[in-house]
Amino acid sequence: MVGNKLTGADLKHVTIQDTFWGKYIDLVDEVILPFQWDLINDRVEGAEKSYCIRNFRIAAGQETGEHKGMVFQDTDAAKWLEAVACSLNKNRNESLEKAADEAIDLIAAAQCEDGYLNTYYTITGNKRWSDLFEGHELYTAGHMIEAAVAYFEATGKRKFLDVMCKFADHLCLVFGPEEGKIHGYPGHPEVELALVKLYRVTENRNYLWLADYFVRTRGERPCYFLNEDCIRNGNYIFPEFKDFDLDYNQSHMPLKEQETAEGHCVRAVYLYSAMADLAYEYQDGALTRQCETLWENIVNRRMYITGSIGSAAYGERFTADYDLPNDTNYSESCATVGLAMFSNRMFHLTRDGKYMDIVEKALYNTLLAGIAMDGTHFFYVNPLEVVPEVVKKNPTYRHIKTTRQLWFGVACCPPNIARTLASLGNYIYASDESTIYVNLFIRSRMECQLSGVGICVSQECNFPENGTVTLSISPEKPGSQFTLAVRIPSYCKGAVLKINGKEEAGTLEKGYLYLNRIWEMDDTVVMELNVPFRYVRSNPRVRHNIGKVSLMKGPVVYCLEEADNGKYLSGAVIDTSVEPQEEYDHQLLRGTLCARLQGSRIDYEKAGDSLYGEERPVYEKTELKAIPYFCWNNRGEGEMTVWMREKE
Amino acid sequence: MVGNKLTGADLKHVTIQDTFWGKYIDLVDEVILPFQWDLINDRVEGAEKSYCIRNFRIAAGQETGEHKGMVFQDTDAAKWLEAVACSLNKNRNESLEKAADEAIDLIAAAQCEDGYLNTYYTITGNKRWSDLFEGHELYTAGHMIEAAVAYFEATGKRKFLDVMCKFADHLCLVFGPEEGKIHGYPGHPEVELALVKLYRVTENRNYLWLADYFVRTRGERPCYFLNEDCIRNGNYIFPEFKDFDLDYNQSHMPLKEQETAEGHCVRAVYLYSAMADLAYEYQDGALTRQCETLWENIVNRRMYITGSIGSAAYGERFTADYDLPNDTNYSESCATVGLAMFSNRMFHLTRDGKYMDIVEKALYNTLLAGIAMDGTHFFYVNPLEVVPEVVKKNPTYRHIKTTRQLWFGVACCPPNIARTLASLGNYIYASDESTIYVNLFIRSRMECQLSGVGICVSQECNFPENGTVTLSISPEKPGSQFTLAVRIPSYCKGAVLKINGKEEAGTLEKGYLYLNRIWEMDDTVVMELNVPFRYVRSNPRVRHNIGKVSLMKGPVVYCLEEADNGKYLSGAVIDTSVEPQEEYDHQLLRGTLCARLQGSRIDYEKAGDSLYGEERPVYEKTELKAIPYFCWNNRGEGEMTVWMREKE
Repeated sequence: MVGNKLTGADLKHVTIQDTFWGKYIDLVDEVILPFQWDLINDRVEGAEKSYCIRNFRIAAGQETGEHKGMVFQDTDAAKWLEAVACSLNKNRNESLEKAADEAIDLIAAAQCEDGYLNTYYTITGNKRWSDLFEGHELYTAGHMIEAAVAYFEATGKRKFLDVMCKFADHLCLVFGPEEGKIHGYPGHPEVELALVKLYRVTENRNYLWLADYFVRTRGERPCYFLNEDCIRNGNYIFPEFKDFDLDYNQSHMPLKEQETAEGHCVRAVYLYSAMADLAYEYQDGALTRQCETLWENIVNRRMYITGSIGSAAYGERFTADYDLPNDTNYSESCATVGLAMFSNRMFHLTRDGKYMDIVEKALYNTLLAGIAMDGTHFFYVNPLEVVPEVVKKNPTYRHIKTTRQLWFGVACCPPNIARTLASLGNYIYASDESTIYVNLFIRSRMECQLSGVGICVSQECNFPENGTVTLSISPEKPGSQFTLAVRIPSYCKGAVLKINGKEEAGTLEKGYLYLNRIWEMDDTVVMELNVPFRYVRSNPRVRHNIGKVSLMKGPVVYCLEEADNGKYLSGAVIDTSVEPQEEYDHQLLRGTLCARLQGSRIDYEKAGDSLYGEERPVYEKTELKAIPYFCWNNRGEGEMTVWMREKE
Repeated sequence: MVGNKLTGADLKHVTIQDTFWGKYIDLVDEVILPFQWDLINDRVEGAEKSYCIRNFRIAAGQETGEHKGMVFQDTDAAKWLEAVACSLNKNRNESLEKAADEAIDLIAAAQCEDGYLNTYYTITGNKRWSDLFEGHELYTAGHMIEAAVAYFEATGKRKFLDVMCKFADHLCLVFGPEEGKIHGYPGHPEVELALVKLYRVTENRNYLWLADYFVRTRGERPCYFLNEDCIRNGNYIFPEFKDFDLDYNQSHMPLKEQETAEGHCVRAVYLYSAMADLAYEYQDGALTRQCETLWENIVNRRMYITGSIGSAAYGERFTADYDLPNDTNYSESCATVGLAMFSNRMFHLTRDGKYMDIVEKALYNTLLAGIAMDGTHFFYVNPLEVVPEVVKKNPTYRHIKTTRQLWFGVACCPPNIARTLASLGNYIYASDESTIYVNLFIRSRMECQLSGVGICVSQECNFPENGTVTLSISPEKPGSQFTLAVRIPSYCKGAVLKINGKEEAGTLEKGYLYLNRIWEMDDTVVMELNVPFRYVRSNPRVRHNIGKVSLMKGPVVYCLEEADNGKYLSGAVIDTSVEPQEEYDHQLLRGTLCARLQGSRIDYEKAGDSLYGEERPVYEKTELKAIPYFCWNNRGEGEMTVWMREKE
């Protein structure tokens, strides 16, 4: 454990200048956030009503009516506010900030005298905290707290933060081991990591303690939830919950004994993120090791190559080791965001580059695949293989959409993607008092203070299309000694690094090249990372991928699409003895590096009409074009596959 | 269309002497039927209560209480009675017949004054015929009618038949095109084929007409069901029905225009069976062709190699052409029974052997796989690939059981399997006035009348383990001229036929070898059918089976099981250039012909610990043992697969 704590870059001091990421980030400011504000105000014509802001008005006594929408409908406002805050960090957009202040005034007005805040329970009069298993009160509180912290950090305005501190103080009175307090914990983890954030900004240790209490108590026998009415008497809000065991929300055994990732993926990775936060705050080695074990279980047993998780749709959950079906999976965008959050925290804890490999994988593949270039259409579920005719006719696939959906009504994934894009700077750079970490290769500029000395790092690159990354290092005070740590990704087949034109070896440790020296103004570090196209195979215990191969370049996973290769993609076989050829497609997403592959495919004209027979199919030679997975489904509906059969 | 109608053998005049089939048939008489009688009388300790007989007692006024169980709970008694009747055909077991008479007395007592009979609607007082979409009243009526006809045919006793004629007369008053009658039809087809049976035994054409009315009206626009309360107001008995479109029960378009098999499989094949019955009775060429089209769609696009149907669990339904996932499918035992029924009717209509190929495939694979040798454990769902650890942890597979289940409570499949086994004779032989058809190669003896002359056919064989089939033909009057038609299965790689030692060519037509001659007492026909092990491949449009092969011998599909081959069956590759070797296993199901295959398999010890990498798996040479699919899961829980990867 390193005493000198590592933190992500302050978003106010990172400017992203990357054309690739820039087009997504611009969408957040220009389209997604204004659109969501209209949505939660029920002003989008033709869209399902959200009722989110209306519920707050009713709870605040400014309007009369019933609560409408889900029990956790308040979180739509919270997620919007958090994403707005991340965006305001880099650009104080006046109209967005005005809308946010308006929402915050309303939230404050909806808060109860004692600090409690939740429009569903306030309006319905249902008993508070009576259904922790399903009621989402603490989950909602968590998103509100995260938003309040982010808004305070972005704007310096305290109002929202004060509202949420009052709520958190109330939570500290309600939950805890003392007699008369509730000995429960959230059915959907989220408040734990939020309380740690609130502690960090307020330094009120009660919040940290409550987060730790929720984590320590979770899954203790007898399980708290078993005494709640919903489980005892079957009075479920969500009928499918009757089918779920306690592992669905990670309460099947004491959390601190759990070593495999179980249950609902979003719940799991939010919870593990909080565990990593606690390990960081308490510098708790045992908890760190448990987090490592859980992370390794995910990454080495239960994660798709695209950085997504959730092998089953029912329960949106982890299943068994090596069970990674490509077409029936859930792979929710939100779970990928959560995996990136957990991995980033693990990097801050351990400074091990393997964690950033997964952050990068999650961001470049599943996160980006979720969003269409119009900013209003999204995938929530991210399969690795789609045959639209089958998806539409076979209800096993009823959770899968064959095109991105217009973002309507209740929605977790779009604002989650938005806040991640808006806080990308946090993933690119990190620093402690003496070291700057460069984690991701994205054209950008970052300023930070190292023991009181201002340092500016700027990064030029076009990664992973090109492996050259140029860093300009400018200390405010020339001749400052500090360490620059640049990540050498695990997929990199060699790296040459030059400082001011002179090759430097540096010290390689856990995926980072450490360069400790005295830096002058405009020192230039040029890294040549060798990231050719490469064929990647699964562990053969993954039965769905046996005999198959995928194509990657750097962190980017490629796929075959019907638009380029016609139907029946499962009839294609790749000759991996031939190197993939680069092919730049100027049309696809305004310019994308693709690959041309050699192989063969079944001649379906010769396939005959009967279903079973003794003949083998006839193959013919063919070329195939692979495109990045994040680009898929931008040219109409069609087949797609990540895993391709490989010639023996 | 042949004017001289073909009919299945009279069960009273078929004796099955086959050791293989005999052990299953004995189970029906000795275990299944007595066990089910106890079940529906709530006398099996530890079993979920059925309430079936109790409901009849309440409806008959002999007991007070509420209706319990499903809306179609009455059918448990009906299916039991039908299976008892089939069994009594060959053996008037006194205690079974006494129990059946008792049940029939009770059913008669539960009938309403006007002929209506349904304990759910009688006891609850719910409005009759108000929910044809879900209420199963006509479905229940259909099973009752089938049972009554079978019982009359087996015993000659009229009581049950009279009760059901009274009900059918009532149906004729209630349903029809006239004003004041209901213009609807069943949500679950079944009564149509039952009414045809009732017509055949009573010669009352009203019943045939009503069956035809139901078929002709089905799916007419606007669809009748759209006016029912459940669809209009969402008041569903079965909540999942809100997700189902009209194609779920084949009412999405006029039935007589439908050319693809859609929706719930059991509903579909029961309905198509009735269509085939109507085509037969009316000698309707257009309807026959439509039946052929539907049958071809199933058999050439939507059927598993094991003769099962139902590619999706949700809706237990057909999906899309060539969509045949091996692990998430439903493949209900009842649907296989229905496919055999439909195919047998198509054979009677057309005398084409291709239909009997499918009857045989259904019987030898999915039907037998459903039943355990104790007669009390059954599979309802019949996947072609199972990995127990995954099935138990991944809710996508929650409909799959990894071992046969003790037969409790509501149950369609066990009695459906029982009645099929008890009426096997019907499938083995058929005849018209001048021809005897031998369809299946099962050691048995059959007597029939050909234009008034008694003929006895007896069959010696041990098929398909051995391809020699010996038929002894004995006309009551020596020197009788008639035709013997023996089926030459499509999988047969050659057939040599000798009559009294002398080779005969006969006339081959649509899968039957016709032998028209003057037959003397004890003429002997010896057929040598060449049925070696063979490797069968799927049409490559079946994406789940690309690069894979299955092993068959005659109609029998083989599979790999963990008990013989260890775990990770998907890591095995078969070298199909090496002929499979016969290997007799004296233990497995008291003696079974197995096969030894050559191939290779992944060395999992060398597979490493990471999930993704660039290395290919290491293979090692191996031998594998394949067993018949119907034998699987008789040696404890374990992996199983029908489709095996094939060496390129």
